[in-house]
Amino acid sequence: MTSPIEFYFDFTSPFGFIGSQRIEEIANQHNRKIHWHPIVLGFIFKVTESRPLVELPLKGDYSLMDMARSAREYDIDMRMPTSFPVSTVGASRAVLWLQSQEQQGSSQQSTALIHALYKAYFVNDTDISKVDNLISIAQSVGVDGSQLSGALQDSTVKALLKEAVDTALAKQVFGSPFMIVDGEHFWGSDRLDQLDRWLDSGGW
Amino acid sequence: MTSPIEFYFDFTSPFGFIGSQRIEEIANQHNRKIHWHPIVLGFIFKVTESRPLVELPLKGDYSLMDMARSAREYDIDMRMPTSFPVSTVGASRAVLWLQSQEQQGSSQQSTALIHALYKAYFVNDTDISKVDNLISIAQSVGVDGSQLSGALQDSTVKALLKEAVDTALAKQVFGSPFMIVDGEHFWGSDRLDQLDRWLDSGGW
Repeated sequence: MTSPIEFYFDFTSPFGFIGSQRIEEIANQHNRKIHWHPIVLGFIFKVTESRPLVELPLKGDYSLMDMARSAREYDIDMRMPTSFPVSTVGASRAVLWLQSQEQQGSSQQSTALIHALYKAYFVNDTDISKVDNLISIAQSVGVDGSQLSGALQDSTVKALLKEAVDTALAKQVFGSPFMIVDGEHFWGSDRLDQLDRWLDSGGW
Repeated sequence: MTSPIEFYFDFTSPFGFIGSQRIEEIANQHNRKIHWHPIVLGFIFKVTESRPLVELPLKGDYSLMDMARSAREYDIDMRMPTSFPVSTVGASRAVLWLQSQEQQGSSQQSTALIHALYKAYFVNDTDISKVDNLISIAQSVGVDGSQLSGALQDSTVKALLKEAVDTALAKQVFGSPFMIVDGEHFWGSDRLDQLDRWLDSGGW
């Protein structure tokens, strides 16, 4: 059995969204599963002394153009949300909580929630940092709203996110999307094609 | 007649080197010429509030691995120089001076010098910030060493570099390699394939 593709992403990352739309096809072609890891870049940027790409002089304007062009190339429906960036603490906690409830090997609902949250934010312009929106999106994929509402306030769920970020940092993950497969690290949606070729070739 | 690919690069940029090894094949496939533009990222980073990639926490280690992997993928002979990064002011002035001496449409010698300098630095581990090395590399492609030696001290040649950096910044160029074709901007060696597909498709 081949090892899965570890896929790290932040819900407010446009390139994370683009990656989330492409990674399943690549994984399927190589008979790999995906482990989805929501992270919060805000916490990671404190360690890497980074700032959100779109805030950087020159790079910010370029990156907005680059995101839109990459989405067009792959026919991905995407628009920049009105509120951007937003806190993704709640969305990440919701996914981590749901993953913790799922049986080993069964991640259908949490994966559906990831896609629903990303679509809400980058297609329907829904502010996913608002708890009400978060809960109704989760309900749309069959999650119990009141259970989720409680989980978002639960200290063990808060600890799940802290642990997820610490674990990502320990693995040298610093961006979104960030993929690890067979110990090899790939950063950025622009490395998805290289990851694909790397798996094709058996590595260089 | 199609417009050329404007190719901006810094001589101490590993991704610039990788780009310089791949851009001619891409340009030829699309019947495009290349205009080579040496820039000095140190000056540009002051505007973009950036630092050299390899100095950044986590990103630095990743980028060293990423550079080596990208070189392996494309069978590009490359090793990280012992002195890295180095000042590329002299190397850039040498190229800009030579370009200013060439007849319109004739850039064979300056292009040969660009490749010779990059090869000296990233293949033969020669410190191209040293004037003696710079001059002997230039002589190896037929440049008059004493003329170059004088040019490197010439205030009009110094002004050429300042103008080149200012012009690049005015065009929103902030990295290496950075390509502009038909008004479209592409940053990074990882965008070369996208540039290739963009030209293939007629744009998205």
